[in-house]
Amino acid sequence: MADASVAAHLLPAPYLLFLGDTTEAGFAKTAFGLRDWAGDKCLAEHALPGATVSTGLPAMTPRKAAAAGAGAMVIGVANQGGVVPNSWMPALLEAIDAGLALIAGMHVRLADLPELAEAAARRGTQLIDLRTPPAGLPIASGRKRSGRRLLTVGTDCALGKKYTALAIARGLQARGLDATFRASGQTGIMIAGEGIAIDAVIADFAAGAAELLSPDAAPDHLDVIEGQGSLFHPAYAPVSLALLHGSQPDLFVVCHQPGREAILGTPGYRVPPIEAVIEMTVAAGRLTNPAIRCAGVSLNTGALGAQAAARVISETADRLGLPAADPIRGGERFEHLLDACA
Amino acid sequence: MADASVAAHLLPAPYLLFLGDTTEAGFAKTAFGLRDWAGDKCLAEHALPGATVSTGLPAMTPRKAAAAGAGAMVIGVANQGGVVPNSWMPALLEAIDAGLALIAGMHVRLADLPELAEAAARRGTQLIDLRTPPAGLPIASGRKRSGRRLLTVGTDCALGKKYTALAIARGLQARGLDATFRASGQTGIMIAGEGIAIDAVIADFAAGAAELLSPDAAPDHLDVIEGQGSLFHPAYAPVSLALLHGSQPDLFVVCHQPGREAILGTPGYRVPPIEAVIEMTVAAGRLTNPAIRCAGVSLNTGALGAQAAARVISETADRLGLPAADPIRGGERFEHLLDACA
Repeated sequence: MADASVAAHLLPAPYLLFLGDTTEAGFAKTAFGLRDWAGDKCLAEHALPGATVSTGLPAMTPRKAAAAGAGAMVIGVANQGGVVPNSWMPALLEAIDAGLALIAGMHVRLADLPELAEAAARRGTQLIDLRTPPAGLPIASGRKRSGRRLLTVGTDCALGKKYTALAIARGLQARGLDATFRASGQTGIMIAGEGIAIDAVIADFAAGAAELLSPDAAPDHLDVIEGQGSLFHPAYAPVSLALLHGSQPDLFVVCHQPGREAILGTPGYRVPPIEAVIEMTVAAGRLTNPAIRCAGVSLNTGALGAQAAARVISETADRLGLPAADPIRGGERFEHLLDACA
Repeated sequence: MADASVAAHLLPAPYLLFLGDTTEAGFAKTAFGLRDWAGDKCLAEHALPGATVSTGLPAMTPRKAAAAGAGAMVIGVANQGGVVPNSWMPALLEAIDAGLALIAGMHVRLADLPELAEAAARRGTQLIDLRTPPAGLPIASGRKRSGRRLLTVGTDCALGKKYTALAIARGLQARGLDATFRASGQTGIMIAGEGIAIDAVIADFAAGAAELLSPDAAPDHLDVIEGQGSLFHPAYAPVSLALLHGSQPDLFVVCHQPGREAILGTPGYRVPPIEAVIEMTVAAGRLTNPAIRCAGVSLNTGALGAQAAARVISETADRLGLPAADPIRGGERFEHLLDACA
């Protein structure tokens, strides 16, 4: 990222993945996401006694990981309530003492915990809170940037926008194209090693932060930008709009979960039809890129069997006249979607 | 505001208006706005030697104003660069010492100036930075609230959304209707005595803050909510969308300045036609209020002569088939607009 030193989180890799004393894999989604999508950045894992979850990476203490070249220990587990339990403190202090940065995406800030703040100041190491936006973010200029951009948008939150952007970027890279995944949320930032959590930015600067995420690039270069929220979510639409305006996408992919009917966390709100999302995204997005258009649809069919998934994918593609695929299932459908994104 | 004690700025009145050593009336717009729109909250003014600007209110020192019942000294002047000049410090410290709260809407925070922070802590008085959002803002719920709401929206920034909302609220109050002005920006908050600067809220919470601004009310009550920015401004649209979704307006009034062609501060962006703003506001606003509709148009014709203003107002009304008026010029046209808002 061109402006990374000024205004974006740039993370010291490789990582030691901290698993706490977790016994449920669901709480370690961040660690598994890093292993799956940023394996080259993951050196080892560190779990406390009692933990039963493992990423399969070698176990190392913070001291050993530091000696092996680790740059940071990443808190790869979510905890109920988002707090840092006392049982984690010795391991976090050991990591600081070993010279590792600590990276977290929790609501509570590491820097607000005096014991950690003092230890990090003494040792001269970084506490990196990904939900704390970098300083000095600008107001958006609206200036058209060079290079090409694709944004993933959604019919709702939490249905595959990050996964889709990662899969498209990787798929295009595998074809030898010059594509970069751009992260706009905490887990995405850990995977990419840089980025800005747009939802944590002050509203006046949110579009400006989105502009920084995908700087000027070579004419053929494609930034594949992780979307957030949904223009149809009554709480998060401003974040989605900031990403849409600031990203200036040439193309967007609508992410949808067939069968999901209610918008997450807001009783009374229905998931909109994909058609409505396409229409609203074009209507709002053409402000900063009049040529914006929909490249296709990404369907999260994880809850369906293979046959039902194939049927909903082909029905969606036929109905919209656009490529549709489940990136996790891959196959020819996904190759068609990649064709439309290239 | 129902939740004011938890989550909105609630300002101690009456005010002593601080004018600094200002010699240009343009820098004292906040003080003049308060005198014009919140005269009942303004007790006196305090200017430093050398100042040539006056609001016409009686001059009082902070000590005298405190003895006369003032609750706060409001910094009613903007300063180049938004800093607090050293020449102001004795007066600000005198106000704290007299037991007055200090209220400011500058980018620099009073609480970040150690001399003021220490004095206020010692004396037990408040430093109120209106660009610092209150703590504990919620994520928007999207829940439909009781009562009626009107939002002012704009073809651009800084063309009369606050003024229009104030004029409509006052006009309806003068007719005996139960209407309340709701402030979403710093000057509006000083005038109303409460509110939240939505543009200073973290993007994830901006729609939630807008929900708090206009709480449940009696069925006939009308909240007239000050809009911010424009859905067509590449930097501020997320703030506008947060206000639109969170306000759930039944009605909106489009504010426009005839003759303004370029969007403020963003070269290459044209001010959209009023028709486009109506269309986009309905398209986005119906998410949280499917019954949303445009009540009319407020035109800022301050740069035009009386005849040219009358012509553009009547042409706009005819073209759109909606009431149009310049609230500053008032008259029958404005009464028609009020009819449509009642």
